[in-house]
Amino acid sequence: MVADRPGEFDLIREFFAPLAKDPGSLGLTDDAAVLTVRAGHDLVLTKDMLAADIHFFSQDPPEAIAAKALRVNLSDLAAKGAKPRGYMMGLALPSDWSPDWLEGFCAGLADDQKAYGFDLLGGDTIRSFGGLLVSITALGEVPCGKAVRRSGAQPGDLLFVTGTIGDAAAGLQLRFDPAFGQDRTLSAADEQYLRDRYLLPRPRTTLAPLLLEYANAAMDISDGLIADCGHLASASEVDIVLDLDKVPVSHAIAKINANSQDDFLRCVDGGDDYEILTCVSEANAEQFSKHATAVGCPLTLIGRVDQGTGIVTVTKKGTPIHMDELGGFRHF
Amino acid sequence: MVADRPGEFDLIREFFAPLAKDPGSLGLTDDAAVLTVRAGHDLVLTKDMLAADIHFFSQDPPEAIAAKALRVNLSDLAAKGAKPRGYMMGLALPSDWSPDWLEGFCAGLADDQKAYGFDLLGGDTIRSFGGLLVSITALGEVPCGKAVRRSGAQPGDLLFVTGTIGDAAAGLQLRFDPAFGQDRTLSAADEQYLRDRYLLPRPRTTLAPLLLEYANAAMDISDGLIADCGHLASASEVDIVLDLDKVPVSHAIAKINANSQDDFLRCVDGGDDYEILTCVSEANAEQFSKHATAVGCPLTLIGRVDQGTGIVTVTKKGTPIHMDELGGFRHF
Repeated sequence: MVADRPGEFDLIREFFAPLAKDPGSLGLTDDAAVLTVRAGHDLVLTKDMLAADIHFFSQDPPEAIAAKALRVNLSDLAAKGAKPRGYMMGLALPSDWSPDWLEGFCAGLADDQKAYGFDLLGGDTIRSFGGLLVSITALGEVPCGKAVRRSGAQPGDLLFVTGTIGDAAAGLQLRFDPAFGQDRTLSAADEQYLRDRYLLPRPRTTLAPLLLEYANAAMDISDGLIADCGHLASASEVDIVLDLDKVPVSHAIAKINANSQDDFLRCVDGGDDYEILTCVSEANAEQFSKHATAVGCPLTLIGRVDQGTGIVTVTKKGTPIHMDELGGFRHF
Repeated sequence: MVADRPGEFDLIREFFAPLAKDPGSLGLTDDAAVLTVRAGHDLVLTKDMLAADIHFFSQDPPEAIAAKALRVNLSDLAAKGAKPRGYMMGLALPSDWSPDWLEGFCAGLADDQKAYGFDLLGGDTIRSFGGLLVSITALGEVPCGKAVRRSGAQPGDLLFVTGTIGDAAAGLQLRFDPAFGQDRTLSAADEQYLRDRYLLPRPRTTLAPLLLEYANAAMDISDGLIADCGHLASASEVDIVLDLDKVPVSHAIAKINANSQDDFLRCVDGGDDYEILTCVSEANAEQFSKHATAVGCPLTLIGRVDQGTGIVTVTKKGTPIHMDELGGFRHF
């Protein structure tokens, strides 16, 4: 977080230095951060960039933009079984930024640093000729050789997912089309719930230690449940059978399903869920579920892993349905 | 480097996966990279973002943009004494990118990966509504506790700088004002040399092991020699006396100095040098110089460190000059 013009030093001192509590950040006064990885641990690194009006709306509260930028990265760390350790932040600020806005943004970072137990290590701030852009590299630690991969699913594994699926996609659709809710008999409370689920991902960090212990493969769901089942199946060189009837949904998404299967499928495969998809052996499944319940992480069995070559079969009432038979199924 | 839309998978497979030779990258097929830091080593992390028409010109060759994005980060690692280990790359691509352009960009990355011995570990690619933006987090390794800091300078240390100073600032000025060279009797070869020095930083990676062995403090010069002396003095809580007559300059900058001291000072404190400023005890200075020569790194003694509070005194013919006496001195 080294300045390339005087204004940046003020930014660092006033806004960013209070976020850099890890001694490795060197107080953001040096060219680089220095990190001692815990003995016996590997470092897990992930990078997600978020840009205004692509990944969030410019007018979203700055606290929420900051939280989302951290949490999409924390979700990746959680899926690998990693404990958050720190992050590097690149920030391209549009010329119309205000101290109030940046104060809110940094308050959002500070809250999540506290909630998830990690700190800013360093970074860079530049001007943006476009809108705001936040580029986070998040770092986590896992015991050596234990990072949970997409590629470890085994035939016979059971397929689990956390939380509920489709909320964020519906929440995004409500941002684009405020009439979407009325047309589908959603209550004001439903709409608020869905909008909030889009605005603020809840990374499943509490599941990370259980994934380390029990999972053969895991990933977070960002592209859409069905698409991400495909990515996992393909990386693991297995087939996946996904039971659509078992996919856990909120009250609001259930209403949408009752109204239109097409809309339901668009939500379910809409992405931005930041829930975790994981494959666990049948022998481990009961212990895994029990411990997930104990840490307050809702978990649902939604399918199984078969021998194969990366094909996903979606079933409904026990019968396979082909994606091209899903009627108007396409993303919003 | 996980895709959030189908086109990104093609980008990863076609352009980025060939750059990810480190097994820790997991072939860019997972949510994250996994890195085992060498035993007995700390990780050094640095992040510099480069944006079109701020840090480079959009019409620069893509190979050069890629090289600059890596090298400004490699320069930070070198100043800390770190050996490059890998990097995470965030890329915001404008809508008018072409496969030819991206091929050139990746060829530039590949060449520098080979030259500097490190690989792409992961990242993210998004659309840009503005111009191209490259966000690199570079990772290096140093023996535990040995990272060279800005804050270690000791009274009595000698102040050294690598290479020549001011070339990149003059090269940038030539880009803005093509008549700048003629007015200052620069030859076509001088101009070409200066433009190239702006376009392509040469990070002093060969000096890194010597900094580890001999330096009390070091940083790379990106903000300008005098400004960065100030940063180092301030971080170390010492004063620095900088002898302007000793500052090493190229033939081209010497011509500019002969023509106008103001222009000379603007170049010398113009920044973008990516040379290394370092403080070495008098006892170590001779060995340090000898070894720097042996690895082909030009090194010049330009000043000394005194007890103090962060003040930089610039001297000329042995006499201190105050910055406000430097006439028209200001950045271009």
